[in-house]
Amino acid sequence: MLYLVGLGLSDETDITVKGLEIVRKASRVYLEAYTSILLVDKVVLEKYYGREVIIADRELVESGSDEILNNAQNVDVAFLVVGDPFGATTHTDLVLRARDLQIPISTVPNASIMSAIGATGLQLYNFGQTVSMVFFTDTWKPASFYDRIRENRDIGLHTLVLLDIKVKEQSLENMARGRKIYEPPRYMTVGQCASQMLEIEQIKKEEGEGKDGVYSEESLAVGCARVGGKTEKFISGTLKQLCKMDEELGGPLHSLVLMGRRTHELESDYVREFAVDKQVWDTIWKRDYEGKQ
Amino acid sequence: MLYLVGLGLSDETDITVKGLEIVRKASRVYLEAYTSILLVDKVVLEKYYGREVIIADRELVESGSDEILNNAQNVDVAFLVVGDPFGATTHTDLVLRARDLQIPISTVPNASIMSAIGATGLQLYNFGQTVSMVFFTDTWKPASFYDRIRENRDIGLHTLVLLDIKVKEQSLENMARGRKIYEPPRYMTVGQCASQMLEIEQIKKEEGEGKDGVYSEESLAVGCARVGGKTEKFISGTLKQLCKMDEELGGPLHSLVLMGRRTHELESDYVREFAVDKQVWDTIWKRDYEGKQ
Repeated sequence: MLYLVGLGLSDETDITVKGLEIVRKASRVYLEAYTSILLVDKVVLEKYYGREVIIADRELVESGSDEILNNAQNVDVAFLVVGDPFGATTHTDLVLRARDLQIPISTVPNASIMSAIGATGLQLYNFGQTVSMVFFTDTWKPASFYDRIRENRDIGLHTLVLLDIKVKEQSLENMARGRKIYEPPRYMTVGQCASQMLEIEQIKKEEGEGKDGVYSEESLAVGCARVGGKTEKFISGTLKQLCKMDEELGGPLHSLVLMGRRTHELESDYVREFAVDKQVWDTIWKRDYEGKQ
Repeated sequence: MLYLVGLGLSDETDITVKGLEIVRKASRVYLEAYTSILLVDKVVLEKYYGREVIIADRELVESGSDEILNNAQNVDVAFLVVGDPFGATTHTDLVLRARDLQIPISTVPNASIMSAIGATGLQLYNFGQTVSMVFFTDTWKPASFYDRIRENRDIGLHTLVLLDIKVKEQSLENMARGRKIYEPPRYMTVGQCASQMLEIEQIKKEEGEGKDGVYSEESLAVGCARVGGKTEKFISGTLKQLCKMDEELGGPLHSLVLMGRRTHELESDYVREFAVDKQVWDTIWKRDYEGKQ
């Protein structure tokens, strides 16, 4: 059996009791470690589970799935995923390959950022599609998120923006020379995300594409850090304000919610508690959001 | 401290290790039992937790929150919620009241249907806003879901439809006479949901509102039963086909996903495995969905 086990969002005790029983009994345990991370190390997990955990990087999952699925017709293999097992596309691939090999599959769901984001006080019903933000380079600034956010904002919905992480990446030079030397991990911050969003808005405006724009420096948003963990932190404010709040938010992982105009007053009351500056918040709330259903 | 503890979706072992520790130590434990249910009884939970669990019905949460929050400044109160604690609006209310009383709050996230629905193979990124479907009566057929689905479909996204449950409801007669006698619980099925969706589409057409309609008998959808549980079951097909599949789907809880035209081929391959009739599926997929980005 192939077990896909969600680990939740924060530490070793966020696994479900059901999940833990599976991990303790399985023949092999893999930890998917490139689409998200827990806030604790592999050694902490190994100690807690009382057994070895094999790190499954992108290479192993995408090219070495035979190894992961080896003999899973006869023995139990646990594939651990931070958050919920179906949060990322990659694992659907793995399941399709297991199906082809007649391997039975069982899933143990867990908290995902896509539902835990409700801890901001914003209603899950008022979210549109989720988008991802990748690290821009000087020459590569993919902006497909912009049209998705436009679609959400046209109908007044919030947008959850998931932020890039770079784990076990090679520099171009090392890649070109085939050297398996990896850069230190990088986790995008709320400040980087807000800046990139504003950069794209500026570029689109110059191109004349989005005459009215999709959002602006004064759009209200919530910066989120370590959602679901003991040190969870939210800071709400304008996108411009959130460009400068990384220190207050603290370490990874971060995510961001851009609020839609359909925000209910109860949601606003809740989120206002986290405001960088309540006066600025109230002014913009009254001007751009309140009653704009 | 007020702890909001998510229980996940299926049975007593879906609680997280962190959640279980809190439940075992808390002074009082409440189980919110009217917006969703686990697939096991209160007695199973009590045995598993080794302690008493107080059922919190709508009346208690909405009018008796003082009782729930009583002395939570000094002792630990655990409020258990099926799924994730922030899935339903009610709990935001409770948190706001706790905040007013200076009660510290801590949340233990867990799987929610809003992320576990990824088990259908449909990508969470391709979902628009979630809608709810309530039981229609002869005189009350609320159709606000229809406009929300239209918004999702206009941009090609999937819609998760959450289905009504009626727990501890009084008949009109008993309510009028002030008799606290409750009807047996009712859980909406995929078939009832699909029928009600088609009924509203018909009414809207007759009213001439949605000239093109929002969906039809031949729209593709996935019927879902007991998502995240051991007896989880998916059946995919047209809305018309899904009107008749309740027996195959089995007991509660049910939910339904109406697919958007932006469905990726990988998603379709996955969902097709659950098709009532693969030939019908393929015909409609090719005609109405494939390549319609």
